[in-house]
Amino acid sequence: MRLAIVGSGAVGTSVLELAGGYGHDVVGVADSSSGAVDAAGLDPEAVRSRKHEQDTVGDGTPEDVLEADYDVLVEATPTTLGDAEPGFSHVECALERDRHVVLANKGPVAERYDDVRALEADSAGSVLFEAAVGGAIPVLSTIDDLNGQVTAARGVLNGTANFVLSRMAAEGLGYEHVLAEAQDLGVAEADPTFDVEGVDAALKCVILANVLYEDTYTLEDAEVEGIDDLPGSALELAAEDGRTIRLIGEVADGDVRVGPRLVPENGTLAVSGTLNIVQLETQHAGRLNISGRGAGGPETASAILADVGRLPSE
Amino acid sequence: MRLAIVGSGAVGTSVLELAGGYGHDVVGVADSSSGAVDAAGLDPEAVRSRKHEQDTVGDGTPEDVLEADYDVLVEATPTTLGDAEPGFSHVECALERDRHVVLANKGPVAERYDDVRALEADSAGSVLFEAAVGGAIPVLSTIDDLNGQVTAARGVLNGTANFVLSRMAAEGLGYEHVLAEAQDLGVAEADPTFDVEGVDAALKCVILANVLYEDTYTLEDAEVEGIDDLPGSALELAAEDGRTIRLIGEVADGDVRVGPRLVPENGTLAVSGTLNIVQLETQHAGRLNISGRGAGGPETASAILADVGRLPSE
Repeated sequence: MRLAIVGSGAVGTSVLELAGGYGHDVVGVADSSSGAVDAAGLDPEAVRSRKHEQDTVGDGTPEDVLEADYDVLVEATPTTLGDAEPGFSHVECALERDRHVVLANKGPVAERYDDVRALEADSAGSVLFEAAVGGAIPVLSTIDDLNGQVTAARGVLNGTANFVLSRMAAEGLGYEHVLAEAQDLGVAEADPTFDVEGVDAALKCVILANVLYEDTYTLEDAEVEGIDDLPGSALELAAEDGRTIRLIGEVADGDVRVGPRLVPENGTLAVSGTLNIVQLETQHAGRLNISGRGAGGPETASAILADVGRLPSE
Repeated sequence: MRLAIVGSGAVGTSVLELAGGYGHDVVGVADSSSGAVDAAGLDPEAVRSRKHEQDTVGDGTPEDVLEADYDVLVEATPTTLGDAEPGFSHVECALERDRHVVLANKGPVAERYDDVRALEADSAGSVLFEAAVGGAIPVLSTIDDLNGQVTAARGVLNGTANFVLSRMAAEGLGYEHVLAEAQDLGVAEADPTFDVEGVDAALKCVILANVLYEDTYTLEDAEVEGIDDLPGSALELAAEDGRTIRLIGEVADGDVRVGPRLVPENGTLAVSGTLNIVQLETQHAGRLNISGRGAGGPETASAILADVGRLPSE
């Protein structure tokens, strides 16, 4: 397939680097202000050094990339809420041109799922977004394979919050201390609001709800509580009872909820560090647990490239 | 799709019952001595009561089912070693007629993988066998989606052996006692040899090796040790060190090995009861863990029907 990548952060850059190993050519790359297009396939190293030296990916514009002759648009710009722009317009542009879209950006499928599905219905292109939920974990493809059998989903869907809670529990340290440590390590962003307030996990749960219920949920439909007010004493009390606390997202009975929950200390949901886990409840196959790395450039790129492989090739 | 099912044990019967919910018709069912064919679709309830009352599924022969007009042959007869018959001949018959094959039977893809792939190469039909490894756990489809990125696999692939070890460790009971209990509960078969000697887990690992290395392994290439000689004192010693023992199958560096191994007591691999788990090591996406029910009629049927959904529909 010929890929055009919009967004050149860690995820977009990893897709550029790994696509060749999956047999695909990258014919366009855009960041927020520039673009590079080459119908014969871009050289990842050349794009990277150009970005490093001149802070642009090429001499063109982002619009040149959107208008290029690709099979699949990879949308890897940062997630935005509300109108989900500019991600949504990128999706729209590709589908109107009958091209496929693979998203890492959660915005369009969390905040404007009905609009995306309506555009897809009128297009010869398909939309896939495995990378938007749980990074490397194959959640959506498993749900798809189970063909309507999955009745509920829950899990740990934000690695930053999980790192903070794991460290607080293991070391008896306070929230502010561990958060600062996570920022030093690059596990938490300078502005960790989305992660610690539960918004990032909620967006992933909203996407799961959209897929499970074939309905249109948005962030407004989710009940969201973060870990930013959680006292260390709560973790100590939990530990006395053989339990710990995790930021659990849950999609069940039509509801979407995210918040700190008590879980067994050595139980399946108590993954440590930045790991993510998803539990799927199925009608005939019992409970499936899938855990792995929920974020990271190459990990998320792997999910994107698996989606590309699932697209109809004609 | 129109399915023909060969084998009417727990798995074959569950496929018959669940296929309709996935939008498929079952046009033929065979047990070892009889067959039922109906181009308009068989009634699951009628087949079941016939089997119950007369110990035959219909008035026809198994050959009638193999020769019926189906799209997919579901092979769910018991696993056999060596020439993998009669399963292998069923696969051969379907592929020579350019039909797809979905296997729960491990024999043909563990003992005669090269023959199966050679037949598939000359056929318009495809062969899938997710149900043969880890029951409901989507192992092979995840490996396939990762497109050559998986470098090694290990895990708990036999629920009976895991049940026995879990109980021995938790209750401090001896092997013979727990095995008898497992037989009473229906978790272990009357002849548990394949499970406790590690053969069943080894066959699954051989299949994983065939897929990962695109090579032809058989049971003879596997180094296999069971749990039937394991003294309870070994579990006690492990527990003193915060560890326990599981029957671990591993495919790594070109080798296939199954045997009792020390694992951390509350670690990811120490699943309890009849659960299975598979860990996949990947090049770019880190380690993925997938756990769930590794056996059972509806669970295995779910994996079969997921495979049917993955087949090219034309």
